[in-house]
Amino acid sequence: MGIIVQKYGGSSVANTEKLTKVCEHIIKEYENGNEVVVVVSAQGKMTDQLIKEEKEITQNPNKREHDVLLSVGEQISIAKLCMCLEKKGYSAVSLTGWQIPIITDEIHSEAKIKSIYKDRILNYLKQNKIVVVAGFQGINVDGDITTLGRGGSDTTAVALAAILKADKCDIYTDVDGVFSADPGKISNASKINNISYDEMLELSSLGAKVLHNRCVEVGKKYNIPICVKSTFLDDSTGTILTDNKLIEKPKFSSITNQDKLVKFILLLKKKNNGGIFNVINLLQKNNIKFDMLTQSVEQQKEKSISFCISYLDLQNTLKLLYLNYKNYKIRKIKHYKNMSKISIIGTGLFNYSEILNKIFKTLYDLKIDIYMITTSEIKISLLIDEKNSDFALRSIHKELITNT
Amino acid sequence: MGIIVQKYGGSSVANTEKLTKVCEHIIKEYENGNEVVVVVSAQGKMTDQLIKEEKEITQNPNKREHDVLLSVGEQISIAKLCMCLEKKGYSAVSLTGWQIPIITDEIHSEAKIKSIYKDRILNYLKQNKIVVVAGFQGINVDGDITTLGRGGSDTTAVALAAILKADKCDIYTDVDGVFSADPGKISNASKINNISYDEMLELSSLGAKVLHNRCVEVGKKYNIPICVKSTFLDDSTGTILTDNKLIEKPKFSSITNQDKLVKFILLLKKKNNGGIFNVINLLQKNNIKFDMLTQSVEQQKEKSISFCISYLDLQNTLKLLYLNYKNYKIRKIKHYKNMSKISIIGTGLFNYSEILNKIFKTLYDLKIDIYMITTSEIKISLLIDEKNSDFALRSIHKELITNT
Repeated sequence: MGIIVQKYGGSSVANTEKLTKVCEHIIKEYENGNEVVVVVSAQGKMTDQLIKEEKEITQNPNKREHDVLLSVGEQISIAKLCMCLEKKGYSAVSLTGWQIPIITDEIHSEAKIKSIYKDRILNYLKQNKIVVVAGFQGINVDGDITTLGRGGSDTTAVALAAILKADKCDIYTDVDGVFSADPGKISNASKINNISYDEMLELSSLGAKVLHNRCVEVGKKYNIPICVKSTFLDDSTGTILTDNKLIEKPKFSSITNQDKLVKFILLLKKKNNGGIFNVINLLQKNNIKFDMLTQSVEQQKEKSISFCISYLDLQNTLKLLYLNYKNYKIRKIKHYKNMSKISIIGTGLFNYSEILNKIFKTLYDLKIDIYMITTSEIKISLLIDEKNSDFALRSIHKELITNT
Repeated sequence: MGIIVQKYGGSSVANTEKLTKVCEHIIKEYENGNEVVVVVSAQGKMTDQLIKEEKEITQNPNKREHDVLLSVGEQISIAKLCMCLEKKGYSAVSLTGWQIPIITDEIHSEAKIKSIYKDRILNYLKQNKIVVVAGFQGINVDGDITTLGRGGSDTTAVALAAILKADKCDIYTDVDGVFSADPGKISNASKINNISYDEMLELSSLGAKVLHNRCVEVGKKYNIPICVKSTFLDDSTGTILTDNKLIEKPKFSSITNQDKLVKFILLLKKKNNGGIFNVINLLQKNNIKFDMLTQSVEQQKEKSISFCISYLDLQNTLKLLYLNYKNYKIRKIKHYKNMSKISIIGTGLFNYSEILNKIFKTLYDLKIDIYMITTSEIKISLLIDEKNSDFALRSIHKELITNT
């Protein structure tokens, strides 16, 4: 008995048949005596379709109007889901972002939630209604529609769970939870039953598209138990995100890889102050994402800076660096294409040399070179040749999944 | 120099090319120094598509959610039109019904406008922006989305023109104006340059789908000059609706016919009080539209009541009448299918026997029987056999268009 927030993604509400399946999950929780608040995304490829139509008009849409356009997708979903629930005999009511309202900042297309008024939702719950909320959207103080960025419905759900002091937030999707590796690449990838917010944040930022990054941050901040589970598997237990900081034993969670990376090495002239700062600043100002940043300074010798970027940013990065060649006192720019980053996520990995040894030994046995290494409390990333990436992924996964 | 309200229907905004054409009209008025407020409908068949998807879910949708669903069509249109205007270098801003807000009553799907707040629109106009408003939608006092019924965007436009004290309201559509008959049926049907609100009301209620009936009522009440013109003809002068009550000479405006009607005759027992009232009441309570209602009472003899209904309502009407057979003291129910109603609209027709004579003589010469006649200040309706209807329409049109 309590408030439960459920969120269903676009593939879970793509058509009438799937909406019916969604109703089953909702009704089950409702019949168990819970108050249920449901957050939905736009149906299937609706958002992509709207963006396609928009591009027919302009490549550079007005951002305010872009949000007006995109927010209709979720509005269609909430109306349809309510109709489905009513047809099954359950009283449901839909709410758009502005009806709640969910107040955001001014940044169209990437708005952040500032506050949520909960009274209207609580009133409907008191009337025993199921409340169906449009994800991804809000309203700014000027009364303009805003959207939270792709995948923002996850954030809507967890933020609602926080404000409503919900017992839990279930994120329904088309997979059974978070996996130890991409099941498309590794057939015996195993489902993770429990994962910490921090591990999930690392996974999300590496491009594992299970959860929106900001939703995990909100979940962590308000300590909301989040469960990622399947809409279509009837006995999906999913993956539970909680704060398991106190775990003592190192635990391997997941491995993932990212291809199409380019490694840069910049050699700087000896007398160079602020070299690394200049380069970071330049990349950030131009919205070029980089990681694996390292700086080496050999005594009395030249400095060198290394970092990785996406292949998509290569031309732009080269142009910017050559424009600032003299200014930044660069002596040489080298770059290496077709690189791949393998990342291993887990709790306390770095503190346990046993696990690190397994990883390095695996790659050594396979004669795979490692070009860069970065580590954090819960992640180790290795840069290797793209051609070896999938094989390395499978080999390390096999070694760790059977031995940790 | 003043405020001009323009309204564009679904066929005028159906795709990017057509939106570009719409921009031309808007920009022309704007460049002439006017403040322009534009009202748009949903694109092309969008509303039909949403209703089709809705029917996949339920035949009996929750009315609140039906309005949430349908209102997205206009929201898509306003965003896209603003993007088009911005692309052409004009600053535009979209407003949904709730953003203005347009306050309506509680009746979902057939809501009536109660009030419109004009401040937000006037503020944007002051900033030299073109304001693009979603037609067809509003918000009730509970903060729920409402819609005004099919064709309601016309009403939005004229109501905005009234509240903003606009110089005129131009209703852009895919025809060049209002015609003396359906150009699809009568090739030499001529465009009407001027028509009174009342004549237009009669035409609209007869099913001429040029203008939403309620929009004409609002135009009449606030005396807004309404011009119906073509989006796609560059020199469309259209039809202007004004209050030409003072016209002395009778003027034939338009002729139209409606098929698939059923004529009823009810014979009532002699001692029968409230016979006609009972029947009217019964039909109205059950949402059965009827017209050409007449009652004949021969001295000391039985009463009879006649009226017309749509063929679609036949089964329901028969059922209701037989259920109340004894109660209403009905002696006999007769009905005649395959009837058609021809209506001739014009100013002061009934007062000029010359015109009436021409109509009756035309039908007499053609040996077409007239079963019922009703007249008003600006309309004459005749019930005839459906098989003669189109021929009678053409013949009367020819006689009146060349001779009045």
